[in-house]
Amino acid sequence: MSQFSVDDHRYMQRAIYLAEKALFTTSPNPRVGCVIVKDGEIVGEGYHKRAGQAHAEVNALAAAGEKAVGATCYVTLEPCSHYGRTPPCAEALVHAGVHEVIMAMVDPNPLVAGKGIGLLEASGIRVRYGLLEAQAKALNPGFIKRMQTGMPYVRLKMAATLDGRTALSNGKSQWITGPDARADVQHWRARSCAILSGSGTALIDNPSLNVRPEQLSEPYPGDVRQPVRVIVDGRAQLTPDLKMFDLPGDIWVARKDGAELCEWPAQTDQLAITESNNKLDLRVLMATLAKREINEIWVEAGSRLAGALIDAKLVDEFILYLAPKLMGNSAQGLLGLSEYTEMNQLPELVWRDVRQVGDDIRIISQPIAPSP
Amino acid sequence: MSQFSVDDHRYMQRAIYLAEKALFTTSPNPRVGCVIVKDGEIVGEGYHKRAGQAHAEVNALAAAGEKAVGATCYVTLEPCSHYGRTPPCAEALVHAGVHEVIMAMVDPNPLVAGKGIGLLEASGIRVRYGLLEAQAKALNPGFIKRMQTGMPYVRLKMAATLDGRTALSNGKSQWITGPDARADVQHWRARSCAILSGSGTALIDNPSLNVRPEQLSEPYPGDVRQPVRVIVDGRAQLTPDLKMFDLPGDIWVARKDGAELCEWPAQTDQLAITESNNKLDLRVLMATLAKREINEIWVEAGSRLAGALIDAKLVDEFILYLAPKLMGNSAQGLLGLSEYTEMNQLPELVWRDVRQVGDDIRIISQPIAPSP
Repeated sequence: MSQFSVDDHRYMQRAIYLAEKALFTTSPNPRVGCVIVKDGEIVGEGYHKRAGQAHAEVNALAAAGEKAVGATCYVTLEPCSHYGRTPPCAEALVHAGVHEVIMAMVDPNPLVAGKGIGLLEASGIRVRYGLLEAQAKALNPGFIKRMQTGMPYVRLKMAATLDGRTALSNGKSQWITGPDARADVQHWRARSCAILSGSGTALIDNPSLNVRPEQLSEPYPGDVRQPVRVIVDGRAQLTPDLKMFDLPGDIWVARKDGAELCEWPAQTDQLAITESNNKLDLRVLMATLAKREINEIWVEAGSRLAGALIDAKLVDEFILYLAPKLMGNSAQGLLGLSEYTEMNQLPELVWRDVRQVGDDIRIISQPIAPSP
Repeated sequence: MSQFSVDDHRYMQRAIYLAEKALFTTSPNPRVGCVIVKDGEIVGEGYHKRAGQAHAEVNALAAAGEKAVGATCYVTLEPCSHYGRTPPCAEALVHAGVHEVIMAMVDPNPLVAGKGIGLLEASGIRVRYGLLEAQAKALNPGFIKRMQTGMPYVRLKMAATLDGRTALSNGKSQWITGPDARADVQHWRARSCAILSGSGTALIDNPSLNVRPEQLSEPYPGDVRQPVRVIVDGRAQLTPDLKMFDLPGDIWVARKDGAELCEWPAQTDQLAITESNNKLDLRVLMATLAKREINEIWVEAGSRLAGALIDAKLVDEFILYLAPKLMGNSAQGLLGLSEYTEMNQLPELVWRDVRQVGDDIRIISQPIAPSP
């Protein structure tokens, strides 16, 4: 681990800030920010806004122009070394004549990790890495997990009264949480590649499961792309008359392998998923979604699907909104988990963040053993 | 409302700090602290440690001696004006020759409120009040409520997994929360006049429901008094062979009015409570406890009794420990409330405090409409 100065930290923090501007737009690519500094002055900066468009380093070099010669480049992720949709950034940095490249983290893809560093060092550029690495990793949990494991990063959203109930016995549940919590949900949806729900929820609530940009309280650059809506429909119950089919954005319906194909509205695709114990194999579904370049998944599902995802150890993060209300034991519960007989069988969590969101409390936690 | 100086605030804060030393000992009397200041110097201070012993003002005056002449007295509660177990403090202050008395709050008892002030002013002593009043009121929620309404202040303790479950379907529940949360519970028990539970919990868990002073992490002066244990036993199921009867401290068994008297162990008393809808009338029980000078009640009960207390609008404060675990819908729920059919019927709460206690999260809330 190199020693980094206060200024190094400041510039990398700026690069992370820039990367975050692409939170709602850059997938399936990672969010990356870049700052080019010469003689104690930022001479160029940029971020990667959208797949297919210029990478962060290229944008920053373009802004720096001639001043990039002899400069230091701060970038949140190891520059790429391969020809993809764009030429490799490592080469661009070499051509621009930078003196040093400081990166927050190396490439999470084990097949290319270190190659950008190698290309830079072979050209005599000084390379250091590991500065604000945890913060940089937090920019791209889904991209990193997909590169390292072939699986997406799954967030499970839950909303309940203080006593852990989601709906009255008669099904009424609007609204448990307040408007601020519901606006907060819009941000999580917007950063996700996919929003996942089940056909039961789709049929009962007829939700849109899309992003309403006007409800995003933070400024965001350009158009928000609509995440894919993935509906788990193991019993082929979904009908094309639901509201979600009338709204812009793709819908992928996950069905049993061999299930009869329906006449779906445009922009609807069908995923054929193998079964396990007479149900869709959710692990296979997740792997299928990762193959389709889905990084982060936001799950808004009923207690059965939510419980099945937890049972299958597929959830990486729990986001629970607790409303200042009580419903009592006659109301519906949060999670249809398998039944435990011993206390030491319970899934254990670690707290990550607890804060008030409007009138509600938002608790973020993660499984104590990360999903494989 | 008078204007108070920074020094006034500082001395009253000290008086409140002193009052808190009696948190575990002073009931059924209120916690009161007193500071006597002359020429910018504290010349005497004291607090009321135990009913029957000297009041805060008397202890502070004794410490100040001759220096009390012409001094300013800061006291968290209006000095008493009547001959109780001790002579009136207002008279003691007059005799000591203090120049001014600043109090945080007037007496909550409507029958005596203002009489101490009147006695002091009649003797030419300057009186001001309302300094740090909210903080002073927080010292004595039970005493204040009992004086004003004839009812005790009821805290309901709950412990659950993140998804609001208290025990596995087979009843196993040890331990949901961690050792720090269980130690925290000891502090709440210690400050309470009574710990209330039901015969179901008593028979199933065979709990001690007492205070274990060695588990109290904060320093406390002198002996901790054991709160009365109150067991709601509407169906006369309690048996005298339970562990709690072998431990020091009183036990009051609440039974139907007219229920047959048992042979109870020593220190056990029976409360005859009228019925309402074929169950013990919990409101009558609470009024009975208030008549017996119970200020603060700490409830550790099963979901049925807890729910009945909420249904009867008898709970003033909810203390919920959330453990970083999941149990799922097959596990037991928190609250046996009456069944609601509309969302606007739900009991609503306001958050008062959210913090981590060891591995658990503690959420304190209160009903949005205070109990009458």
